[in-house]
Amino acid sequence: MNFSKRITGMQSSPIRKLVPYAEAAKAQGKKVYHLNIGQPDIKTPPEFLDSIKNFAEDVIAYSTSHGSYELIDAMIGYYKGFNMTLQRKDLIVTNGGSEALLFAFQALCDPGDEVLVPEPFYANYNAFASSVNVKLVPITTKAKEGFHLPAKAEIMKKITPKTRSILFSNPGNPTGVIYTSEEIEMIADIALEKNIFVIADEVYREFVYDGLKYTSFGNIKRIEDRVIIIDSISKRYSACGARIGCILSRNDELMAQVMKLAQGRLCVPTLEQVGAVALYKTPKSYLDEVNKEYQGRRDILYSKMKQMPGVICEEPKGAFYVVANLPVDDAEKFVIWMLRDFHVNNETVMMAPAEGFYATPGLGKNEVRLAYVLKKEDLSKAMDIFKAGLAAYPGRV
Amino acid sequence: MNFSKRITGMQSSPIRKLVPYAEAAKAQGKKVYHLNIGQPDIKTPPEFLDSIKNFAEDVIAYSTSHGSYELIDAMIGYYKGFNMTLQRKDLIVTNGGSEALLFAFQALCDPGDEVLVPEPFYANYNAFASSVNVKLVPITTKAKEGFHLPAKAEIMKKITPKTRSILFSNPGNPTGVIYTSEEIEMIADIALEKNIFVIADEVYREFVYDGLKYTSFGNIKRIEDRVIIIDSISKRYSACGARIGCILSRNDELMAQVMKLAQGRLCVPTLEQVGAVALYKTPKSYLDEVNKEYQGRRDILYSKMKQMPGVICEEPKGAFYVVANLPVDDAEKFVIWMLRDFHVNNETVMMAPAEGFYATPGLGKNEVRLAYVLKKEDLSKAMDIFKAGLAAYPGRV
Repeated sequence: MNFSKRITGMQSSPIRKLVPYAEAAKAQGKKVYHLNIGQPDIKTPPEFLDSIKNFAEDVIAYSTSHGSYELIDAMIGYYKGFNMTLQRKDLIVTNGGSEALLFAFQALCDPGDEVLVPEPFYANYNAFASSVNVKLVPITTKAKEGFHLPAKAEIMKKITPKTRSILFSNPGNPTGVIYTSEEIEMIADIALEKNIFVIADEVYREFVYDGLKYTSFGNIKRIEDRVIIIDSISKRYSACGARIGCILSRNDELMAQVMKLAQGRLCVPTLEQVGAVALYKTPKSYLDEVNKEYQGRRDILYSKMKQMPGVICEEPKGAFYVVANLPVDDAEKFVIWMLRDFHVNNETVMMAPAEGFYATPGLGKNEVRLAYVLKKEDLSKAMDIFKAGLAAYPGRV
Repeated sequence: MNFSKRITGMQSSPIRKLVPYAEAAKAQGKKVYHLNIGQPDIKTPPEFLDSIKNFAEDVIAYSTSHGSYELIDAMIGYYKGFNMTLQRKDLIVTNGGSEALLFAFQALCDPGDEVLVPEPFYANYNAFASSVNVKLVPITTKAKEGFHLPAKAEIMKKITPKTRSILFSNPGNPTGVIYTSEEIEMIADIALEKNIFVIADEVYREFVYDGLKYTSFGNIKRIEDRVIIIDSISKRYSACGARIGCILSRNDELMAQVMKLAQGRLCVPTLEQVGAVALYKTPKSYLDEVNKEYQGRRDILYSKMKQMPGVICEEPKGAFYVVANLPVDDAEKFVIWMLRDFHVNNETVMMAPAEGFYATPGLGKNEVRLAYVLKKEDLSKAMDIFKAGLAAYPGRV
């Protein structure tokens, strides 16, 4: 009784696979600061739970496969704020951005088909691609270039008859990159020339710092028939556990195909949709506050990183992650060592080894991804512990 | 820009695809009795919402990928009542039974691999199989045999080197069959001889009527390393919109593989898990009451069916569905006609055409699936309208 190759060949989540080491550390009485996972500590707007508390039906019934119109209309209102005029048919509510991405892969790709993606990329892209036999083809980007894209010719070289799409996280997880409007237009050119879709994971849309201009693929009119936007309330409203997202496209035929997948899994949870409606009505000032808070955290993280000898990283400009190159033999060993063998006053730090964020073998081996999702005081303390650990680590190179 | 063959080749849900006709009927002011979908009208135990109302965290954070221990432990307690002794590692919480089935397919099958399944079968099995390139190979069962299994030799003939599993819905959706313990033991023999897994969809475990003995695949010790149980709270506690289920297996290696998939999609909604814990604490008397209610509904449905000339169906013994053979040219046309062209005092009935529940082309063309999920008075009225429609239908044969 063998298992499928697709699953045995799938890597474990680099974000979650070391959790047992963190649990062991906690069992020993250590406090662990989690910089490994994008779980913000920001309060979820209370309207989420309040609206669920007011749910007055006797039966927790299926929602429609499309998603409740209340939620879809609330989402349409939100996108209007980004100059995107949408109709109900352009959106399907999903179980987080995760399911939206899975649906996009399934709708575009047969087994063996290829999707281009700049690396390092969000590690779970790998999980979804493997699970449906899609091959991710990396476009390598580099810390010293702030993880911006290579020249058009470099990207064109990667496109084969099997290429169905290019996938972007923008703002970038795990890199913190914000693509320039020139980069976005270059990708639009490629999508038109090569007749392929763009999958734009824009779940961090509000997390752009230093007043930088953000360009959404949803605003590039000339490719609106070939853009699929992946979105989620998880980070925007600090509601990761609600698992509400959406898939968005103006390509009606595509959405009709995706609806088959949505119908197969019946619906997204009814109560979570009720809560999400309320979140989309949160005043914009909430999001402005959150942006300010994260920019402050980014400043602390980056200023502390700059003080660590041998650490290479550029200032992240968006999302709430950074990939840093460390002077260590092996980043995974270092992360485990921090949890198992190191502490400062019985406190330590958990990070995510970055190798799992690359598709090219060998890359990322001495890199980690940090999520700056803790309040400033804790983040500052965590970074000091990280620095002390790095200085004391026996595998330092 | 083509879409994938896997998605263009996928059928639309036969349960949901005619919804626009129902909506049009409602827009005309008609009342529609929904016998097309397994959405019970039974009240969800109020403890579900009450426990969510008491959720006291400030952040709606990710749950673990495994599922909350509170919920897993509650599930373990539930299975103890069915003489199944489980450990936490044997269960992973999923987005309904739907996701559990998807995970099972992905973990066992590479593209082109085969899963045997008695037909007619739950139509969404098709959606999940197509979406991950698994081929469902039907074992045809018949209304006049109460949808019981053919002889062992018939089933053995269907097994090829590509067969990875046999999938059962027991109690059966859409057939209402309860497999005998002899049938279950026969399947266990096959699973051992052919070294394949059994996927047992047992979401209707409590819906067994007439005091019939129910045998779960979870109680067959000799195949416990090759049984995967798909479960859900949707029907049990009338909580379809909660989308909480689980995948269960004593095969540790399998569960380790499935955990990769669970980590990829991060987690199941946090609040729904809180509510589900409360549901699993519902006293058994609730389930006994529900069983009694459904048996009463089954009795009404079946006695009304018997009075309809030309309708062929056996008395269903479990779940809350029946597949009936109608004296019509085309069941889908009939269902659409009932919605569009027929009414009794401005009321009509929606059913699911059964063709989509078969994999063998041509089967089910004059059959419908009925879900007896309405309260007795409504069900009785709906069946009378159905009878009148059948008598008046111009395509009657």
